[in-house]
Amino acid sequence: MQDKLTLMTPGPTPVPEAVLKVMGCHPIGHRSREFEAIIQEISGQLRWLHQTSNDVLIITGSGTAAMEAAIVNTLKSKDRILCGDNGKFGERWVELARAYGLEVEVIRSPWGQPLDSEAFRVVLEADTEKLIKAVILTHSETSTGVINDLKSISKHVNSHGVALSIVDCVTSMGVVNVPIDVWGIDVVCSGSQKGYMMPPGLAFIAMSPRAWQYQENSTLPKFYFNLSFYRKTSIKNSSPFTPAINLYFALKEALTIMRQEGLESIFKRHDENSRAIQAAVKAMGLSLYACDGYRSPSVTAIQTIDFEAELLLSLMRNKLDILLANGQDHLKGRIFRIGHLGFVSNRDILTIVASMESVLHTIRPGKVVLGRGLAAAINELSSRTKD
Amino acid sequence: MQDKLTLMTPGPTPVPEAVLKVMGCHPIGHRSREFEAIIQEISGQLRWLHQTSNDVLIITGSGTAAMEAAIVNTLKSKDRILCGDNGKFGERWVELARAYGLEVEVIRSPWGQPLDSEAFRVVLEADTEKLIKAVILTHSETSTGVINDLKSISKHVNSHGVALSIVDCVTSMGVVNVPIDVWGIDVVCSGSQKGYMMPPGLAFIAMSPRAWQYQENSTLPKFYFNLSFYRKTSIKNSSPFTPAINLYFALKEALTIMRQEGLESIFKRHDENSRAIQAAVKAMGLSLYACDGYRSPSVTAIQTIDFEAELLLSLMRNKLDILLANGQDHLKGRIFRIGHLGFVSNRDILTIVASMESVLHTIRPGKVVLGRGLAAAINELSSRTKD
Repeated sequence: MQDKLTLMTPGPTPVPEAVLKVMGCHPIGHRSREFEAIIQEISGQLRWLHQTSNDVLIITGSGTAAMEAAIVNTLKSKDRILCGDNGKFGERWVELARAYGLEVEVIRSPWGQPLDSEAFRVVLEADTEKLIKAVILTHSETSTGVINDLKSISKHVNSHGVALSIVDCVTSMGVVNVPIDVWGIDVVCSGSQKGYMMPPGLAFIAMSPRAWQYQENSTLPKFYFNLSFYRKTSIKNSSPFTPAINLYFALKEALTIMRQEGLESIFKRHDENSRAIQAAVKAMGLSLYACDGYRSPSVTAIQTIDFEAELLLSLMRNKLDILLANGQDHLKGRIFRIGHLGFVSNRDILTIVASMESVLHTIRPGKVVLGRGLAAAINELSSRTKD
Repeated sequence: MQDKLTLMTPGPTPVPEAVLKVMGCHPIGHRSREFEAIIQEISGQLRWLHQTSNDVLIITGSGTAAMEAAIVNTLKSKDRILCGDNGKFGERWVELARAYGLEVEVIRSPWGQPLDSEAFRVVLEADTEKLIKAVILTHSETSTGVINDLKSISKHVNSHGVALSIVDCVTSMGVVNVPIDVWGIDVVCSGSQKGYMMPPGLAFIAMSPRAWQYQENSTLPKFYFNLSFYRKTSIKNSSPFTPAINLYFALKEALTIMRQEGLESIFKRHDENSRAIQAAVKAMGLSLYACDGYRSPSVTAIQTIDFEAELLLSLMRNKLDILLANGQDHLKGRIFRIGHLGFVSNRDILTIVASMESVLHTIRPGKVVLGRGLAAAINELSSRTKD
């Protein structure tokens, strides 16, 4: 049906009406006092969301822009770095780092499996000469639905004493607890079209005091991503280049809504919702792609087994107006992914489960006991709500 | 008054309601067929606007992002380039090029004066070894209201035979005639919050076949700005990274409106409006900052002489809800700037002239003959309309 589309992809994610409304406001001058007031408010809220007293800077661009900014602002050509890779976005870190001539040692896990934090510990402890300048990884691997053990890996990085930790939190920020200051993470990247429940176009980067020291000595070439420009102007509640003004309006609104809900509630909601989907998927006789204990609360990847992902995706899209995501690269057709991060309620989970039952009833006739997935989701949600 | 703000800055510029409306639509998936259809339509319209059969690619970012993409995609470290600098955005090219280790020879003119196309000819003709790899300049210098003689300079670059032409058309695209293919310009950068009459957040870069050859051999490090990624995906009406989806909705709408108006009419409207403002400024006893014959149809810089720019700007803002721009850098306080590019009609010109008379009446009591500026603007507009 026209205008019935519901996004359940891992980005873009659904956007509240209040946020959409301000997207359509007339732009105001980005050097005006009114806009400075908006930036000031946003800056405080971003620190709250990131649980940090560090600077959180905004770049007009995608999440990858923040990832690139992280690298070019902290490192020097030929620096040795350690990079975790267990999915498409881990791979992206490796490609990005190599594009800048860094010497990348990769700690790899198979897609669907988490990074082995012990492997990081071993390599970091062996580096007695302190040649490793950064440890770079993806927290929530959007391509596989795996969440890595950032807390443990960060601890090993901190024990090393020299290496910075640089983390893609694109689908974990505003979804799951990432206490940056407590865990001592140096650089954290995220993007607007995820947990922030707003449209794409803004990227965020949090920088620790130690990361700023690296910034001052970094020699990789940069201009649009030169965070010293952003830092200098952010003190004056401004930006070095014309920002995506309307997206700032949206950000202010979205952060206000998030603050009203509260971090605890946001994390609990995502946890509940993801567990309910996982329970439903299993009850429907399908398999989860990400290994047990490391399933991201932002995205669930489901194996297709005896049907084509494309068929399920097109029925969901064309009959029920729900947009899900296919697998990426070699997983295309072999998994499909449900995004449930950002502006997603318990009701949306019931909707997606009910819709999946309906579509699977068509695709796998006789193999689906109708109502079983829904029952599992409802049970899971109600057991959580009782807590 | 609340909600009465009128933007007359050289960016952001006013946005039509039809464009604002789609900004507030729910995002759709950027890998969906619906979005591919939007990209396909936009791509055709961008070629029309650029008067080119070259690729015109879209980057989520500010105009500076396109400028940086132009450099890192065409050049190699230590390449020799020739850079025109007669204002803040000319300076930016020089800084950007130096940040990437290029050897920059600068052809400078004083702020307010145009670049000397003869100086380009002389240097290019002297380069018999063909060491100059690119000639880089700003077409419309937003900081001073000067428009450079791009046609002549492009001719000299083409005679050189090796150097690429790389041009910042941020405040000239969609304002004044820039026939890219006819003039043989290789790389053209622009941004959404200018002649495109939409909010900021998108940057555009047009690349000639020769520029693509340079791209393949370019060695400067890049990832987010790697245009080979953009080219590869644009063939499939897609983008390499998550684009600012809602700004694409706006772009589609804005380009539709522009196409309805037609290039000739757009250029004529900007020409008329700028001449009317210039005539009014002179009639009010003020001086234009940009030299005669090289005044940009997108922005008019006015010297303050015997009053503070800040006083005029604050009266315009606080009493009449019109936002103008101050001078930049050493011109702060010494000039003020009126942006009249994009969604600006004859009526807006009458409004700004009437408002300036009102404010100058307060600031320079006894020195302004009321009605004289307005008369000059009306005369200028009606003489043009008769053509």
